[in-house]
Amino acid sequence: MRIALGIEYDGSDFHGWQTQDGVPSVQEALEQALSNVADHPVRVVVAGRTDTGVHALSQVAHFDTDARRDMRGWVFGANSQLPRGVAVLWAQPVDEAFHARFSARARRYRYVILNRPSRPGLLHNRVTWECRPLDEQRMRAAAVHLLGEHDFSAYRALGCQAKSPVRTLHRLEVRRQGEFITIDAEANGFLHHMVRNIAGVLIAVGCGKADPDWAREVLVGRDRTLGGVTAPPGGLYFVAVRYPEPYRFPEAPGSAGILGYG
Amino acid sequence: MRIALGIEYDGSDFHGWQTQDGVPSVQEALEQALSNVADHPVRVVVAGRTDTGVHALSQVAHFDTDARRDMRGWVFGANSQLPRGVAVLWAQPVDEAFHARFSARARRYRYVILNRPSRPGLLHNRVTWECRPLDEQRMRAAAVHLLGEHDFSAYRALGCQAKSPVRTLHRLEVRRQGEFITIDAEANGFLHHMVRNIAGVLIAVGCGKADPDWAREVLVGRDRTLGGVTAPPGGLYFVAVRYPEPYRFPEAPGSAGILGYG
Repeated sequence: MRIALGIEYDGSDFHGWQTQDGVPSVQEALEQALSNVADHPVRVVVAGRTDTGVHALSQVAHFDTDARRDMRGWVFGANSQLPRGVAVLWAQPVDEAFHARFSARARRYRYVILNRPSRPGLLHNRVTWECRPLDEQRMRAAAVHLLGEHDFSAYRALGCQAKSPVRTLHRLEVRRQGEFITIDAEANGFLHHMVRNIAGVLIAVGCGKADPDWAREVLVGRDRTLGGVTAPPGGLYFVAVRYPEPYRFPEAPGSAGILGYG
Repeated sequence: MRIALGIEYDGSDFHGWQTQDGVPSVQEALEQALSNVADHPVRVVVAGRTDTGVHALSQVAHFDTDARRDMRGWVFGANSQLPRGVAVLWAQPVDEAFHARFSARARRYRYVILNRPSRPGLLHNRVTWECRPLDEQRMRAAAVHLLGEHDFSAYRALGCQAKSPVRTLHRLEVRRQGEFITIDAEANGFLHHMVRNIAGVLIAVGCGKADPDWAREVLVGRDRTLGGVTAPPGGLYFVAVRYPEPYRFPEAPGSAGILGYG
């Protein structure tokens, strides 16, 4: 049978999602834990691979197994084996047509910036620190240029393996809450480094180094080398995946990841 | 001259505030950094000493110095020397009558509980995990019994050094935001382990192990050994200190510590 999982992880504990020789990855940790619970080798497929240092609040993965465990057994069994930086939130049986990556209709990321003169003492590796004052109105004016279907060549990593550079950005919202600025991005899919490159452009616009129109100029130029810096990974969170009917999974809870102490 | 500082720290990086031989403390890290900036040995006095694993969003401290630096110089100089788990938020000159500890009129703490079946994958050491469903109405009913001036002997650590066990609890609020429950406590002062012992009682009440009235029974019994467990330190945040006029410091920003990704 095929089982879908919701997963939360702290990217600063891992060298990204994907298994690599000699360094800890989320995939390897999860496969080891699930293999122990299943009592046979398990391979997992994930909705959105993430880079070193990038976090996830409600990542989705699937795996196939012949082992018979109830869903609580998978969740509690895996969590008892996993390192502290990964937790399985839920498990749900799905049919064989479900594929965590290929069935996904949309993915959502959040980029979190701590915008104040002093560097973080509490949220190191959990936010990106920007000491220059950011004007969120300017950032919003820049964001508007990126909404919709575009060739995002200028916003993808030079080594990005995706066949097409065209993606549809459904949502790109910039909000300020006190010292924090969040950038929420939803698209049918994201290219490698796409959110971090967008964040890099929006930060440059927000601090006055570039005009809001520059976001559009970069886009139409289709040249990554003119797109400025890639914002650091620690502020990036993979928030949620959307699947078509009939697949319904527990929502990323409204407050998942809000540290309630505000 | 005397200088007051606002400080944020990640308690999981330190063995508490106070300097101890052979283990890292916030006090030692701060004194080393400030001594380097001042070019003479600096001793700091803090508003509220915290235990191992307890965090601070806006701790206040003071120190005396003959060195002439502008306030930005103290902040940036200290932050460039401090380990990643401590940051100075602001510095402000004060008169010699100011004392970070003795001038304080009230202190505020927040206790943060992650209340869900799965343990945290992202906020380990930043929240206290409770898998049993907590009823925040019951917790509130228990909290009411503790408001006001009381002998809090039953809620202080056996080794607590305070002369008097009497404190005035101005505020004890329990709120739920999705999977998070926060307990906000403000008092003229707190005894050793007082917030964690209150949290322990409120958690026992919230999960149905005890009735709300038990909080009062423990209080009037004045016997620590009947007060149940001390809740773990990782969910505890020293939030703010209140001083009388004319001392006015930057507020703990409304969102300090909200991880904006909710």
